[in-house]
Amino acid sequence: MSASEEPTHEMHPEESWEFLRGHEFGRIAFHLLDEVHIVPINYVVEGERLIFRTSEGSKLLGLKMNADVAFETDEITDEVATSVVLRGQARELTGDAGRLVEQLPLRPWVDTPKMRIIAIEKIEVTGRRFDLARPWLRARVD
Amino acid sequence: MSASEEPTHEMHPEESWEFLRGHEFGRIAFHLLDEVHIVPINYVVEGERLIFRTSEGSKLLGLKMNADVAFETDEITDEVATSVVLRGQARELTGDAGRLVEQLPLRPWVDTPKMRIIAIEKIEVTGRRFDLARPWLRARVD
Repeated sequence: MSASEEPTHEMHPEESWEFLRGHEFGRIAFHLLDEVHIVPINYVVEGERLIFRTSEGSKLLGLKMNADVAFETDEITDEVATSVVLRGQARELTGDAGRLVEQLPLRPWVDTPKMRIIAIEKIEVTGRRFDLARPWLRARVD
Repeated sequence: MSASEEPTHEMHPEESWEFLRGHEFGRIAFHLLDEVHIVPINYVVEGERLIFRTSEGSKLLGLKMNADVAFETDEITDEVATSVVLRGQARELTGDAGRLVEQLPLRPWVDTPKMRIIAIEKIEVTGRRFDLARPWLRARVD
């Protein structure tokens, strides 16, 4: 198999950021004591960080105790899966920083109070596209 | 707001397993040394565990060093987001166990060699449905 036929393609960082900006739903993985946890969030990109809202709970507790997090968003079509992962540090935004965020288009998807604002500051962004070989999908169409 | 109007609904474990069985794509969060990482996988449910394939790499290395993982799959419609999280222990299946898995409908989505078989054995399964309040979606229809 020649290099051009490899089914996995690394995305350029700018392409990865564009993908992140073009979506608003993903999952954050975080430490809670010695466990790893994962929850869905909706977010907005500001510069090279993601911003999301949360309420008191195990997620906020985990982030406060260990700021190391990984975030993922993806999209699948019949032929290609795209996945972008942002590894970063979570930090609560308060005071002026929190108020500035009020101006971002960070819309609550679920109607529950979420008063705390968290930024995930970039350590590393990795985007990959996978050419999908799922002949059963085409078989289903026949 | 009365209890019946709460926008977040816990799913029964059996409903969560049904959701897991009805999907085949999700994300696994795992430890790699003192970092948390997350990658997309395709999987199949067998009993109360998930099975997926992988190749040599940082994911396998991370799972071997620390078996504690969290897996998530979700689905979003205009009105409801459903997210099921399986926290568990990752264990490589080899020998007879690995051969038995060959009979499961675990189809490779990407055409790369993935010779190692991993099971995520359940510690806890948590399913939630979120009623979405996104008036901007309806506004877009107008």
